[in-house]
Amino acid sequence: MALNETHDAGLQSWVASANTGKSDFPIQNLPFAVFRRKSNEQNGSESFRGGVAIGDQVLDMAAVHQLGTAKVLGGDVQAQVEAAAASQLNALMAMSPAQWSALRLALSRALRAGAAEEAALKACLVPQSEVEYTVPVQVGDYTDFYTSVHHATNVGKLFRPTNPLMENYKWVPIGYHGRASSIRISGVDFKRPNGQLKTPDADPVLKPCNRLDYELEMGIYAGAGNPWGDAIGIEDAENHIFGLCLLNDWSARDVQAWEYQPLGPFLSKNFATSISPWIVTLEALEPYRTAFTRPAEDPQPLPYLSSAANSQRGALDVQLSVAIQTEKMRAAGQAAEQITQTSYRHAYWTMAQLVAHHTVNGCDLQPGDLMGTGTLSGPTMAEAGALLEITEGGKKPLSLSNGESRTFLLDGDAVVFTGWCEKPGAARIGFGECRATVLPARQA
Amino acid sequence: MALNETHDAGLQSWVASANTGKSDFPIQNLPFAVFRRKSNEQNGSESFRGGVAIGDQVLDMAAVHQLGTAKVLGGDVQAQVEAAAASQLNALMAMSPAQWSALRLALSRALRAGAAEEAALKACLVPQSEVEYTVPVQVGDYTDFYTSVHHATNVGKLFRPTNPLMENYKWVPIGYHGRASSIRISGVDFKRPNGQLKTPDADPVLKPCNRLDYELEMGIYAGAGNPWGDAIGIEDAENHIFGLCLLNDWSARDVQAWEYQPLGPFLSKNFATSISPWIVTLEALEPYRTAFTRPAEDPQPLPYLSSAANSQRGALDVQLSVAIQTEKMRAAGQAAEQITQTSYRHAYWTMAQLVAHHTVNGCDLQPGDLMGTGTLSGPTMAEAGALLEITEGGKKPLSLSNGESRTFLLDGDAVVFTGWCEKPGAARIGFGECRATVLPARQA
Repeated sequence: MALNETHDAGLQSWVASANTGKSDFPIQNLPFAVFRRKSNEQNGSESFRGGVAIGDQVLDMAAVHQLGTAKVLGGDVQAQVEAAAASQLNALMAMSPAQWSALRLALSRALRAGAAEEAALKACLVPQSEVEYTVPVQVGDYTDFYTSVHHATNVGKLFRPTNPLMENYKWVPIGYHGRASSIRISGVDFKRPNGQLKTPDADPVLKPCNRLDYELEMGIYAGAGNPWGDAIGIEDAENHIFGLCLLNDWSARDVQAWEYQPLGPFLSKNFATSISPWIVTLEALEPYRTAFTRPAEDPQPLPYLSSAANSQRGALDVQLSVAIQTEKMRAAGQAAEQITQTSYRHAYWTMAQLVAHHTVNGCDLQPGDLMGTGTLSGPTMAEAGALLEITEGGKKPLSLSNGESRTFLLDGDAVVFTGWCEKPGAARIGFGECRATVLPARQA
Repeated sequence: MALNETHDAGLQSWVASANTGKSDFPIQNLPFAVFRRKSNEQNGSESFRGGVAIGDQVLDMAAVHQLGTAKVLGGDVQAQVEAAAASQLNALMAMSPAQWSALRLALSRALRAGAAEEAALKACLVPQSEVEYTVPVQVGDYTDFYTSVHHATNVGKLFRPTNPLMENYKWVPIGYHGRASSIRISGVDFKRPNGQLKTPDADPVLKPCNRLDYELEMGIYAGAGNPWGDAIGIEDAENHIFGLCLLNDWSARDVQAWEYQPLGPFLSKNFATSISPWIVTLEALEPYRTAFTRPAEDPQPLPYLSSAANSQRGALDVQLSVAIQTEKMRAAGQAAEQITQTSYRHAYWTMAQLVAHHTVNGCDLQPGDLMGTGTLSGPTMAEAGALLEITEGGKKPLSLSNGESRTFLLDGDAVVFTGWCEKPGAARIGFGECRATVLPARQA
């Protein structure tokens, strides 16, 4: 993939709100989601369909399709528009990078200031303030990785102070399978889970989790899959990635500590995973590719995890922020308070390495499969991606500006992730937000 | 659920092959699968659709549906027949036990010797020898448990001789998420996986697995799911189970040993999982329910995992056999050689406990979700469900009658699981077989 006319930072849209320089969704972004108008008496209950963000609007791809793609976007992207208009975007993800790229180019040209298509496409816009979103694909399988060496070290220190990082970490992109059914879109709140809690001196009891945590992650959507039994080589791996979102891998730390040996996390993770609605394509992120480096003293990745392109541009510089809004803040009209800012570029394993590793044994990826990066903690504690790290396992409470403090999340706390790319000479590319609020536990 | 007229051991079918006393599929069984006639010039490539086994025949449910359900099975089961005729049985599984039971009763009556429906239904039979099967549902999520205390102890001994069983084992029904995409139906062979192998004194290398193993398991299909955030109580749990199959959780032991800390098995398991085509319903297994007992000195299950019914009849006495047919045996026309026989009744956790545990945190099960029991080793080594146990981690080769021996599986080895229930006064209920052959690894 390379920079092309769609990345030109000077491009302006006839949708004025896209041109502020501060929007997450300028014409250089063009991310995909599945949406509908919020249900009310006037709208009734609409069907979910695909849309593309532009400024503060959604371009309704089902409306574009109905209008006649050939008329407003040219004749070459009819299949893509049909797939992008669906209530689940798996068919769009099953396409090739060339097909995705053609759709992006057509959208970019039609949404540009002065485009002849303005009059027709204007009728296909819906204000983002009037819509609600849903999980944009059928997630066949959800895999969660562990790509931050800083997170792995911080967490390891709590359990093994003298030997925090396991021997396999720098060789194996560690991952495990997560639960697809409990993935929910940003804005859907969830109940604090019940689970077995064990203190050192007593038998376990079933209780509401009292060490509830977030994990700051990105989600990676698979594009076209691989035939079962084949592998995807690292040089080809990015052709099998459609795009990225923000992902919160909610975690019940007390449940996890008791259950996770020897087969890994289970009920401590599978009660809820939140994702942001907008999927930013890999092509939109092209200006923010950066070198993938690891300390010279570390082992070099095995050949199946190594390529020149991966070293030169395998990483992605996505800025990531975590903010918390407690119930008290909400009552006082106070916005969410930022507690962490970091970047995806600190990850120890790249997207391409995750895909190559996942399939090296012949495991078949399918379009729309979701891969979490694992908690994206940066090198300093101000960049830590989970309360477990920030509070050193609950020992050092985090102070908030309104006088409250937290070791782990309380009922009513909303956690808000945001993500964006920004640098001189390139357009800002935003991810929107991933937000959910902790509700009280079900009476067990 | 209780015994009813469909369980009467004296029932005979007008399909004579069901009445031999040795068939896996007498009229008291009536399991479901998804099948089609094997593709050839005469049949072309047919569509997959649901069927019910009777003797050596498949009752084609799509043909029944087309014939007019009301005419041949009565008017009360039209919705069930339509769901059972589909190419994926999720809609059937989403129904209630009362609906499943009504379909079973209608099928039992129509297939009985002397039934008026014989003439019409005869046209809906297809010989099993002429069909092929496919995975009978869309598996939304696949969970694998670890319910045999004998397996957990045998494996634990290899790693921790003095402390084989972890402290959580007798409290927590340990489980983890598996890969849904790589589940294949019996008869589909698979390539030996490549993966990172690590010896104590050298860096890891990418190589074909050389400690390839099977795991003898049963698969449990979820029926109706639970709303996200709610739990399924143990008293209600079996109402959310549709039926069972045989399941082989193929395992790359060398890959597993190097990768599994701290997040559990990943590439060592997700290259292939084999399942038997026929789903035996919980109702068909009713005569084989047995008491669920654990040693008096063991902790009692926590209240959410405990009920009187679960103690009295929570376990299932399904006989299970593992046989191996090497390439040499195949060339010599020798049948697969049995190396293990055990029973599911030895499991430490019951089906109902698995469902109650899985959902206690609000995790949502969906119809057609598949739960593996984990390797079902019995109390003696002759009942061990994996080569890892039988050969004590590869140290004591298993001798076969033709002079060959195995520590782990070689290319060309076929592994065949069979399962059946049998006792005086009840009809034999069989599961058919779950078989696959190891193919050479892909050139890495």
